[in-house]
Amino acid sequence: MVSDRGGLRLMPVVGLPEVQAGDDLGRLIYVALLASDLHPVESDILVVTHKIVAKAEGRVMDLSTVEPSEFSRRFAAQWDKDPRQVEVVLRESVRIVRMDRGIIISETKHGLICANAGVDRSNVAGSDQVCLLPQDPDASARRIADTFRMLSGCVVPVVISDTFGRAWREGLTNVAIGVAGIRPIRSYIGMLDTQGRPLRVTALAIADELAAAAELVMGKVDRVPAALVRGYEAEVGEGSARELIRLPVLDMFR
Amino acid sequence: MVSDRGGLRLMPVVGLPEVQAGDDLGRLIYVALLASDLHPVESDILVVTHKIVAKAEGRVMDLSTVEPSEFSRRFAAQWDKDPRQVEVVLRESVRIVRMDRGIIISETKHGLICANAGVDRSNVAGSDQVCLLPQDPDASARRIADTFRMLSGCVVPVVISDTFGRAWREGLTNVAIGVAGIRPIRSYIGMLDTQGRPLRVTALAIADELAAAAELVMGKVDRVPAALVRGYEAEVGEGSARELIRLPVLDMFR
Repeated sequence: MVSDRGGLRLMPVVGLPEVQAGDDLGRLIYVALLASDLHPVESDILVVTHKIVAKAEGRVMDLSTVEPSEFSRRFAAQWDKDPRQVEVVLRESVRIVRMDRGIIISETKHGLICANAGVDRSNVAGSDQVCLLPQDPDASARRIADTFRMLSGCVVPVVISDTFGRAWREGLTNVAIGVAGIRPIRSYIGMLDTQGRPLRVTALAIADELAAAAELVMGKVDRVPAALVRGYEAEVGEGSARELIRLPVLDMFR
Repeated sequence: MVSDRGGLRLMPVVGLPEVQAGDDLGRLIYVALLASDLHPVESDILVVTHKIVAKAEGRVMDLSTVEPSEFSRRFAAQWDKDPRQVEVVLRESVRIVRMDRGIIISETKHGLICANAGVDRSNVAGSDQVCLLPQDPDASARRIADTFRMLSGCVVPVVISDTFGRAWREGLTNVAIGVAGIRPIRSYIGMLDTQGRPLRVTALAIADELAAAAELVMGKVDRVPAALVRGYEAEVGEGSARELIRLPVLDMFR
């Protein structure tokens, strides 16, 4: 009844164990897929939430080891925050974009602009622990893709996702913070519309759309930290999530 | 081989004719689905690009009827734009957010913040014609959903999408500008993470994620202006895309 012509499937990766520092994440995900009778095929794309990547890479910090600065203490006291967590957010930031009402929107070392520099307390084991973003999410994606290739023989591009807020709009969506094996932006420059005229839309952030689509099968409380996308014809290429970050000189909302 | 447990499918709606003012869009899409042997079922979600909605509703303007203001002429001359199109953009705007380098980011009558107030020349028939956003995209979505219910007997929520830029990030993504039949935001307020602690992420803009996901099977040059999403358990409710617009008092990026 259902035609699959040109269609796309999103499949949650279930049954992953609690990820520990040092785990081989690519292998864990591959094993979980096989256990669900899901066999990766060429041109599948794997979307992985940054949280398990950060855990596997030991990017979890114990707040009891953090000495907050005077600035962190003052902001934390004013807005009823943990000063040690504020300190970690500032250490992970290179620039503050907005700092108001207890909210810190900053630019991370990766050039990402997001709340709290991606520092996050949810879904981390210890009550005094916070999770940081991976040091180099493109490299994390590349490692997982390489493991998948070794184990399955298939080239499976990888997208590392995080959940970001947006200017002007309510609610968060998943975006791509790391990429391996696909071009994150699909360019339509020079192409014509159905009427033979140049397109207004010239570049689509398909890595962000893949991350957003994957979120729909992940949820936040079900422990589904990865999803497999089947049927999307991506442009193959090394790619980098840095391509998704607007250059400061072109950014009207710095 | 492929398990569908908890999975999600995105299916392009192909074979739609060129949409004309006055067309019954819900019926056209339904007929196109059946012709592709795609039978909508309860809990499917239909995503429709605003362009065909606007065309069906006659929201196409002939620039030869537009007399540009002095302000429109000056801006257009400075940046090599069509002064009549600049005039239409300003008429569709209630507030300019940024106006630089030939780019106008404004707030529309709907409260949406986007480039050129959504006024768009691509995929419109006449060379002097531009397409405006639907007057009331929630109502447009409601009409299509009602037609679907009448024809198929199924409750199929509808999302009207447009392609927007974002602050700080390169590339465009599809977002929801109209909604009927689902709650556009999924709230996790009060819910606990896998470790029993409150979640950092409290509200996900799932209507925007559905629009982004649907874009992946639409493309820009293939005349696929709608997609059917199957397998997503949405929160049913009347809903409105206005819920996705941040209240000015809470917006740090006005």
